[in-house]
Amino acid sequence: MSASASGKMDINEVFRGGGRSVEWLDAINKASIVMLAETGLVAPALAEKIAPLLAPGTLVTDVGSVKAPVVESLAPIFKNHAHFVGSHPMAGSEQTGFAAANAGLFDDAVCIITPDASSTPEAVVAVAEFWTLLGSRTSELSPAVHDEVIALVSHLPHLLAATLVNLVCSQNPNSLNFCGNGFRDTTRVASGSAEMWSEILQSNREALKKSVGGMIEKMREALELLDSGDETRLNQFLTDAKTERDRLKTRK
Amino acid sequence: MSASASGKMDINEVFRGGGRSVEWLDAINKASIVMLAETGLVAPALAEKIAPLLAPGTLVTDVGSVKAPVVESLAPIFKNHAHFVGSHPMAGSEQTGFAAANAGLFDDAVCIITPDASSTPEAVVAVAEFWTLLGSRTSELSPAVHDEVIALVSHLPHLLAATLVNLVCSQNPNSLNFCGNGFRDTTRVASGSAEMWSEILQSNREALKKSVGGMIEKMREALELLDSGDETRLNQFLTDAKTERDRLKTRK
Repeated sequence: MSASASGKMDINEVFRGGGRSVEWLDAINKASIVMLAETGLVAPALAEKIAPLLAPGTLVTDVGSVKAPVVESLAPIFKNHAHFVGSHPMAGSEQTGFAAANAGLFDDAVCIITPDASSTPEAVVAVAEFWTLLGSRTSELSPAVHDEVIALVSHLPHLLAATLVNLVCSQNPNSLNFCGNGFRDTTRVASGSAEMWSEILQSNREALKKSVGGMIEKMREALELLDSGDETRLNQFLTDAKTERDRLKTRK
Repeated sequence: MSASASGKMDINEVFRGGGRSVEWLDAINKASIVMLAETGLVAPALAEKIAPLLAPGTLVTDVGSVKAPVVESLAPIFKNHAHFVGSHPMAGSEQTGFAAANAGLFDDAVCIITPDASSTPEAVVAVAEFWTLLGSRTSELSPAVHDEVIALVSHLPHLLAATLVNLVCSQNPNSLNFCGNGFRDTTRVASGSAEMWSEILQSNREALKKSVGGMIEKMREALELLDSGDETRLNQFLTDAKTERDRLKTRK
């Protein structure tokens, strides 16, 4: 999940600082690390603007939820100005804004570092050290592998949660008056910013389409299990899932 | 969710009390309310055993997650001995056993009371009062409507969570090392007892099959949205889900 929800924000508005002073832009040449927390559409324009202002050797990273297109567009922009290495902290919630800030947000969370051919080993180490200092466990994946993995464990679950809410509302909206914590947890992420998530899902649509197609196939399998009345096989299906899900309890 | 996971327990073992003394059976004629916390398969045998022992006018209820078949089998058994009214507290977790006990479990949770034609109005009121005393908000549904509603907001989410875990394990098991809280919440219920849940899902298979079929259709719609590249429609799909899911935040 990325930390910002301002996908449609006018880039000029970012620089006007919404009426606030813009010292951050004047001060950016003193930064040793710069974190881009804008979504994919805005990030290149922001990068073009700040790249020439950075001191040589500045480390730049981002927190976007889709990596291949972002790394592809940002790496060349920063190439002659700074060291860019993408990162994706697997932390956050459906909430946005300063009121949702949480000092322990990154504790024990996985942060995926996504170097590409242009990344220097020193920059990769430095970005990993930054996230480790914040409490995260870091791991490296190529941008393309990252996008496949995250399609499965983040983008698909988000789309499933939204689809489930929409299904209940179309089949029997009154049912929502009777839901328990199971439904609430299963659909929590559907409360995330629709604007941010539609951009994320579109940016990773090829990997996500594969995951959604796989999910539809797997649900047909589950439907066939129900249809067969074979409780032993249904029990095995649920046992397989429980075994793997239980393993997640022992690691954050 | 039902409170017990002993679907396959030998009914005689229940009465032997697993080697413990069986004073509860001797004392049951002094009870003014009896709560059956066994799953569907065991409940009728248990009901047959205790019904003749109950004092006239005893109130009997249960906590099962599927109501039509349970009410249909239990109501005639208790008919000449006690007042049976089914109930389903929408509370619980993926955990089982005494260690998972929680004094606030029923606070503000919905408890669905499912009277049928044989229920006396006094018994329905008394069961509702019992759950209200425990902190729940009660609501009435017929057993058949209950089963349709719960197929959508409990049984389908459970099957979706298990299916998602199984999909990830079949497509890319390594992905589980990179999941964040979104995946954890979406799949939490898949850690529930596989034995209990396969019995629940099978007991409600007709309503559940309709929900699963609807979900597959809705996911095809989402896939088509992704395929079209129409971000406005995808944004609307996610906005519709967010609007409804946000409403759940203001009520427990």
